Amino acid sequence: MIPKLDILLNATRKLIRKDASANLIKMVAKLHPADTAELLKHLNPSERIYLFDLLTDKEEIAKIFGELDVMTRTEMLEHMNDRSISDLLMEMPHEDVADIIGEMSEEVAQKILGSMGSAYSQEIEKLLKYEKDTAGGIMTKDFFALSEDITVQKAIDQLRAAEHVETIFYIYVVDRQQKLVGVVSLRKLIISSLNSTLKQIMTTDVIYVKAFEDQEDVARIVEKYNILAVPVVDRFNKLVGIITVDDVIDVIREEATEDIYMMAGTSSEELFERSVWKITSLRLPWLMISLVGETCSGLIMKFYHGTIQSVIAVTFFIPMIMALGGNVGNQSQTIVVRGLGIGKIIEEDMWKILFKQLQIGLAMGVIAGGSVAAISLLIQTNYMLCFVVGFSLLISITLSGSMGVLTPFLLKKLNIDPAVAAGPFISNFNDVTGIFIYLGLVTFLLYYIK
Amino acid sequence: MIPKLDILLNATRKLIRKDASANLIKMVAKLHPADTAELLKHLNPSERIYLFDLLTDKEEIAKIFGELDVMTRTEMLEHMNDRSISDLLMEMPHEDVADIIGEMSEEVAQKILGSMGSAYSQEIEKLLKYEKDTAGGIMTKDFFALSEDITVQKAIDQLRAAEHVETIFYIYVVDRQQKLVGVVSLRKLIISSLNSTLKQIMTTDVIYVKAFEDQEDVARIVEKYNILAVPVVDRFNKLVGIITVDDVIDVIREEATEDIYMMAGTSSEELFERSVWKITSLRLPWLMISLVGETCSGLIMKFYHGTIQSVIAVTFFIPMIMALGGNVGNQSQTIVVRGLGIGKIIEEDMWKILFKQLQIGLAMGVIAGGSVAAISLLIQTNYMLCFVVGFSLLISITLSGSMGVLTPFLLKKLNIDPAVAAGPFISNFNDVTGIFIYLGLVTFLLYYIK
Repeated sequence: MIPKLDILLNATRKLIRKDASANLIKMVAKLHPADTAELLKHLNPSERIYLFDLLTDKEEIAKIFGELDVMTRTEMLEHMNDRSISDLLMEMPHEDVADIIGEMSEEVAQKILGSMGSAYSQEIEKLLKYEKDTAGGIMTKDFFALSEDITVQKAIDQLRAAEHVETIFYIYVVDRQQKLVGVVSLRKLIISSLNSTLKQIMTTDVIYVKAFEDQEDVARIVEKYNILAVPVVDRFNKLVGIITVDDVIDVIREEATEDIYMMAGTSSEELFERSVWKITSLRLPWLMISLVGETCSGLIMKFYHGTIQSVIAVTFFIPMIMALGGNVGNQSQTIVVRGLGIGKIIEEDMWKILFKQLQIGLAMGVIAGGSVAAISLLIQTNYMLCFVVGFSLLISITLSGSMGVLTPFLLKKLNIDPAVAAGPFISNFNDVTGIFIYLGLVTFLLYYIK
Repeated sequence: MIPKLDILLNATRKLIRKDASANLIKMVAKLHPADTAELLKHLNPSERIYLFDLLTDKEEIAKIFGELDVMTRTEMLEHMNDRSISDLLMEMPHEDVADIIGEMSEEVAQKILGSMGSAYSQEIEKLLKYEKDTAGGIMTKDFFALSEDITVQKAIDQLRAAEHVETIFYIYVVDRQQKLVGVVSLRKLIISSLNSTLKQIMTTDVIYVKAFEDQEDVARIVEKYNILAVPVVDRFNKLVGIITVDDVIDVIREEATEDIYMMAGTSSEELFERSVWKITSLRLPWLMISLVGETCSGLIMKFYHGTIQSVIAVTFFIPMIMALGGNVGNQSQTIVVRGLGIGKIIEEDMWKILFKQLQIGLAMGVIAGGSVAAISLLIQTNYMLCFVVGFSLLISITLSGSMGVLTPFLLKKLNIDPAVAAGPFISNFNDVTGIFIYLGLVTFLLYYIK
């Protein structure tokens, strides 16, 4: 019943190659719009256009468009003329239209909006005013609100009439000023007497969000209180939209992806970008930070070149110091960044976590330092160096473990996204301090003690 | 209306310090169970016990328990006697009870189950048979199913009687063998004539999952088709449970966290673990891989010690080669691992992505290599070396960019979780090959050409 994408993809490609458009139309007609969207996304551009041109039902195309990713959607739009774009948009929910218009160039957007009738385009422009990452930016206007004075019987009649509202889980109850005063679940409606007013049966303790709230906070609220939709109100407590749980799921996925990309030193914009140069420029700042950081590492080595010259073997352990310190630092900062990101860790937890990660770092340091001291005997025979390598490893692992905890908390206090810290910035810091501690110790011990 | 955790935490601590239990009871009584659970989690152990002992309403405690994380829950349970544990569990939904029992030692679990009455404990044992990460492992038995022959009027009567079923969005329709044959939304029920049978108004094209399906696949289905709950059937198509969207959100969060931790070379088990030694042992395998990998790096350097001896400055660039190669490799593998993880990338996309990442790697390599060649003049004055550094950087960046794409796809083909690849394993590979290419090139150019 749920088609497998790879099978679907192969079947589609075969039909396209045979130019069997009638069969293809029949096949696609049976698909859920989400499946057609996924299929379109994974076809190559010419196949995509071929399939897209076969679709004729405007309502169906609108549904497919609602499921497409930005990159594919943009490509399809470029293939269409302005007239068919505005026809298509008229079939879509307002918030999707606002998203699509928001991605267009100012000029194209104005032209499309102009062709849509002023009442409609005003609606869209109102939505466009909300920041993309806020409650207002992701909400739908497709909600079902009724006055508190009407009866259950009347509510049911209204529900019957409201065929255009796609998904209804709750009826929101508003007063005369359109202010949100309560909520009634459909189940409650069904089991209540037909003569009660909504005011009598509604829950007044409604969980709601403000239109300017960050989408991540909205997601956390929906997740925490296990609700299916959260109403959005403006400054005056007037109900302006709702956010449904499926949009929340998208936010959660997006935010996780963004964090993961940021930690790796790139941006999730990379997903929506086809141009190699644009992607390169997204990553370049991080590469440059690494470049500067590692130039420092190089300068430190240059500073200690006397030590290196007299005992070449000293350099053999530099990769190990860098990699193992980076490893542990990366682990502890990942724990903290993700914990802060999903709200499992709060600022008050810092010392507790630092203390724990310090212990872990110390344990890892002792084990790694000990093993390396032993292994280093395999690579060379200077006993003193074996000891120094082991000891420096212990210190640098413990240190980068602690830095991995402190940096994200510090960034959070400075209102910078902690996911940034987990990127190349911290690992450079580890490299520089690790090499400095190691070479400093070697120099001190080999020259002043021996 | 939605309390801020840090304010709540401070207020609670103040009241505990003053031993103002009456005020504390009053404050907590006003909280949503999810907020009380969060509060408990962030208190320290003694405060936690203090607050917990103040809670007396069994039903309320059960709700709070349903929201607690495993670590805190286990701590609370250790504080309770067997009698109060089974009393508490009887108030909770079956699937939560199965989760909690599943986390207990065999011995304790048997004792608790024994005290619960055989009908009840058989129900729980049935749930315990499903693997934790499957549809059966996360489903709830708390669903609402009716026979296809009954009328809308009768369905509404049944709905009125079913007060124990917590959340109802859909009515599942089954035949005489309890096989799933359709679904009716509450809205459809409300707007249909009271005399129609469910069979007449139901949707027969139901999206469902099998009990043994992986929870990640279930999450992807719910997400893709924007549904609020998905029915779960056994081998014989009999309806055995449903999975609601709030459980799906938990799965999505969990899986993202797991991927993030794995990429950093640890495990999300770390979240549920208090013992420093256990956490160290979770991370140790990755540390050991690094240790072995970087020993290879050291051995390669030892092999080329003649080159290093004659031009010490050669070593100054090793940190740069390692860091920049690792950087780019990490970026491209993150894109692929996350893409595969959320189903945005499928195996068929490999060559397309490889080609794109190759271009990006080449662009980054040219820029980084060029800059480094320039910067290296600052550190030393050997022109030939500057060229070699830049050129090696170009090659190693391009190479690790490609490896970052290929490894996850390869692991996926071998049925290994690609998130593993993004961990220390790949970065070691980058270090070893990067150093080998660099020192090999230096040796070749400086000795055989010059």
